[in-house]
Amino acid sequence: MSPQELWERYKKYCYNNDSIGLAIDISRMNFSDSFFGEMEDGIQEAFRQMSELESGAIANPDEQRMVGHYWLRAPELAPDDGTQQAIESGLAKVKQFAADIHEGRITSESGEAFRNILVVGIGGSALGPQFVRNALGTADDKMKVFFFDNTDPNGIDKVLAEIGDSLDQTLTVVISKSGGTKETRNGMLEAKAAYENAGLDFAKHAVATTMEGSLLHETSAGWLDQFPMWDFVGGRTSEISTVGLLPAALQGIDVDGMLAGAKAMDQVTRSTTTNENPAALLALMWYHAGGGKGQKDMVLLPYKDRLELFSRYLQQLVMESLGKQEDLDGKTVNQGIAVYGNKGSTDQHAYVQQLREGVNNFFVTFIEVLKDRDGESMQVEDNVTSGDYLSGFLQGSRSALYENGRESITLTIDEVNPEAVGKLIALYERAVGFYATLVNINAYHQPGVEAGKKAAAEVLDIQLKILGHLRENSGQGFTADAVADAIGESESVETVFKILQHLAANPDHDVKREGAELMFDATYSA
Amino acid sequence: MSPQELWERYKKYCYNNDSIGLAIDISRMNFSDSFFGEMEDGIQEAFRQMSELESGAIANPDEQRMVGHYWLRAPELAPDDGTQQAIESGLAKVKQFAADIHEGRITSESGEAFRNILVVGIGGSALGPQFVRNALGTADDKMKVFFFDNTDPNGIDKVLAEIGDSLDQTLTVVISKSGGTKETRNGMLEAKAAYENAGLDFAKHAVATTMEGSLLHETSAGWLDQFPMWDFVGGRTSEISTVGLLPAALQGIDVDGMLAGAKAMDQVTRSTTTNENPAALLALMWYHAGGGKGQKDMVLLPYKDRLELFSRYLQQLVMESLGKQEDLDGKTVNQGIAVYGNKGSTDQHAYVQQLREGVNNFFVTFIEVLKDRDGESMQVEDNVTSGDYLSGFLQGSRSALYENGRESITLTIDEVNPEAVGKLIALYERAVGFYATLVNINAYHQPGVEAGKKAAAEVLDIQLKILGHLRENSGQGFTADAVADAIGESESVETVFKILQHLAANPDHDVKREGAELMFDATYSA
Repeated sequence: MSPQELWERYKKYCYNNDSIGLAIDISRMNFSDSFFGEMEDGIQEAFRQMSELESGAIANPDEQRMVGHYWLRAPELAPDDGTQQAIESGLAKVKQFAADIHEGRITSESGEAFRNILVVGIGGSALGPQFVRNALGTADDKMKVFFFDNTDPNGIDKVLAEIGDSLDQTLTVVISKSGGTKETRNGMLEAKAAYENAGLDFAKHAVATTMEGSLLHETSAGWLDQFPMWDFVGGRTSEISTVGLLPAALQGIDVDGMLAGAKAMDQVTRSTTTNENPAALLALMWYHAGGGKGQKDMVLLPYKDRLELFSRYLQQLVMESLGKQEDLDGKTVNQGIAVYGNKGSTDQHAYVQQLREGVNNFFVTFIEVLKDRDGESMQVEDNVTSGDYLSGFLQGSRSALYENGRESITLTIDEVNPEAVGKLIALYERAVGFYATLVNINAYHQPGVEAGKKAAAEVLDIQLKILGHLRENSGQGFTADAVADAIGESESVETVFKILQHLAANPDHDVKREGAELMFDATYSA
Repeated sequence: MSPQELWERYKKYCYNNDSIGLAIDISRMNFSDSFFGEMEDGIQEAFRQMSELESGAIANPDEQRMVGHYWLRAPELAPDDGTQQAIESGLAKVKQFAADIHEGRITSESGEAFRNILVVGIGGSALGPQFVRNALGTADDKMKVFFFDNTDPNGIDKVLAEIGDSLDQTLTVVISKSGGTKETRNGMLEAKAAYENAGLDFAKHAVATTMEGSLLHETSAGWLDQFPMWDFVGGRTSEISTVGLLPAALQGIDVDGMLAGAKAMDQVTRSTTTNENPAALLALMWYHAGGGKGQKDMVLLPYKDRLELFSRYLQQLVMESLGKQEDLDGKTVNQGIAVYGNKGSTDQHAYVQQLREGVNNFFVTFIEVLKDRDGESMQVEDNVTSGDYLSGFLQGSRSALYENGRESITLTIDEVNPEAVGKLIALYERAVGFYATLVNINAYHQPGVEAGKKAAAEVLDIQLKILGHLRENSGQGFTADAVADAIGESESVETVFKILQHLAANPDHDVKREGAELMFDATYSA
């Protein structure tokens, strides 16, 4: 296609909405002129199902749940007064609590102002707050945010060392919707021990965000405060709920701006006119790119440092929502779209070589941010700024990919602020929902996650049996095979071996190895 | 395969090397028993070519360059005395300079100790130092490391705000092998301006790492010091050179340990006995997984927070090396392997849903670290620690994927320390080299990167023409079409439009827009 033809195609298909500060350019995706016509019935069905979802239908049939993240920014749309009130009072509580902390009405045990937040959470309870911290945080934030987002002991120690002797000024926020996530429970216990080792009362430095009646809800009864979560909000769509808004408000971010941005995007993405609905355009482009089967990876390239974690946030939102074995009719479909990316122009010096020349198994989503910085820029050459270069590299990279037949979408926004972050989140939430209908899957459950958790629990059960056996026969050495036989787990001998390796590498359970570390005939004793 | 059969397969194929502290388990990759036999000729050819490369052959034929990153940790193997001496004196200079800084023999302008490092670099000049900072840094590091790794003005401002009023105690390290990378040049100029705005002399706070004779070499002539880089070291394999070792040494990391680890791994990966060569095993597994055509993405899941950036480091090393359009015979092959991942068990709560159930377009590399932390752990349940959980989740996730026919490799190392980081880098450098021979490509050039740079330069040229036209006709408004016609760029009207949008969104060039921001009929004036 000649540049002039491409310009005409750009103008023909460009989604422009000044009122919401968003443009989407799909001209560099090579769908045919008949594509939108062919997809119109499918996308209208997606609009219809989305409307039912927003009205309170059981949109997550496997788990018999409503899907209510759109109500979080428009509580008046909730299907009943109780839900509306719960959302409104939850938000009011978040804002009041943040104000009480900032203004010193709630202080640490010793009366000092809290100046750090330690978020203990994983998955949806960490990725959103991490993305928002980086996208909207400044050196002048009201509080500095740390994370325990794993059950890695060394990782925990590293964060505690960074907090150092300011633990008394650190508010720990434990976030788990279900209240039963083991990584988060472990992080909480490790944090509690750290406070106690410093002579501090954990309960006077901690709050929890969880569903009423959960294990964490019970545990946190005597803490500084508790914040509600609800069955109708999934972890990966919880950034605009108490889960994400509490850390953001504490950090000093304008949460009303985030909510307003999400609400404004929701209004636009309710349009049933396909080419006026930016989320529908995204979903249709994903469908086009991967043939409705995820044959192409989604590479996210925001040309803005603040959006560096957006791809990781979307990795969860897109892959956990769309990566499904069965469709809604129970047919095996193995759906999904792989998502990766960091930021431009940095990634241009990492893997754009492969994108331009290598295996053509992806499409790119460029995110362009028009505003360079607050205030004026210096010139790095006559009449050229650093931001002009950033903009030039984005255009250059798009061109270089297009020339070689690599497809790309470009989103353009004005700047990265709370409204824009709310809008981006809402845009992709809606696009994921539409795409799920196009390929007939449930976007709101995650049945595959249970298998790994169950298998991990079995491993820990076997560990207890191993420790029991070694301690009953204290001083005697056993090979992995012998231990497996003795505890009736000969089928799981590989698991037994790996557990023994890990036990012997750490001092906690007094398990010793004789013989070479990685050899199968080493013996273990306790 | 039954668990017992899998255990036998594990023992049969497991690579174990206690002396180097590494095990590789390939039993969960479903290659056939005949696979290694079929590949033996190919991998022997890879060993042969690697041996020639290490002896100083022109292993990068397009650029007529030697490929010498293995000499960095064994200078005695360099093909001539000059090269050996250059490497040795470069390393000695790095260590001496770091000692001079740490011990206060080199201070800031006002005589204060330097306590921060600002690394200005992109691609290979940032990813390695970022990975190593996170993998090996502690709260007690001798210096704190910041990065300008892009040409994003807001991103630059954010880092400067974090450095705050400690700029006088900040040593800026500008890294560019070629000395001509625009993002790095821009970052340097922005840093220089920041020092000058603070009344400080940039030259007294800066050092450069670059090739002799480069533009940066010239610019930095009067700075605190200069460190050498060489033609025979590529950016993506430069972490173990002055590029990576200077920031590491300044941070207080044991660079001799990193070098020793890399050297030890090099020795092991020179074996020409395939099943005794861990890099050969990796390369062969990549070949098996993707049919030698990159049909499967490589998902990296280190179960250790400190290794979180390893996947980003490998994204560059693997994708820029292997993502090639043509093979060595000039045939179009569109090679490459897409790489992504963050860390376990965190990612288990993000996208393992898709890995287990969704589109089967990947293989996983688990990285297991046996040591949990320094010292003992608390118990989170009777006889169970946080580290036991981390280990259990790794095993659980492996099992859940295996059950559903998803392939995985598991690397096991003892702990994350300087030696291990050197080993991991060297292991993957060698594996990438072997794989390149298996698929007959040049792993050491990046011809596709130029296209984007060239296209970006054209965009900036057009910007200058636009500004010229608008200023000559000051006060008059023009549409994008009219500007494009007037400057003789009607073919590039889309580029003109996008430049105008960006110019009007920023105050720097006094370009104003009339009419709606995103509309094609808006007019622009200066």
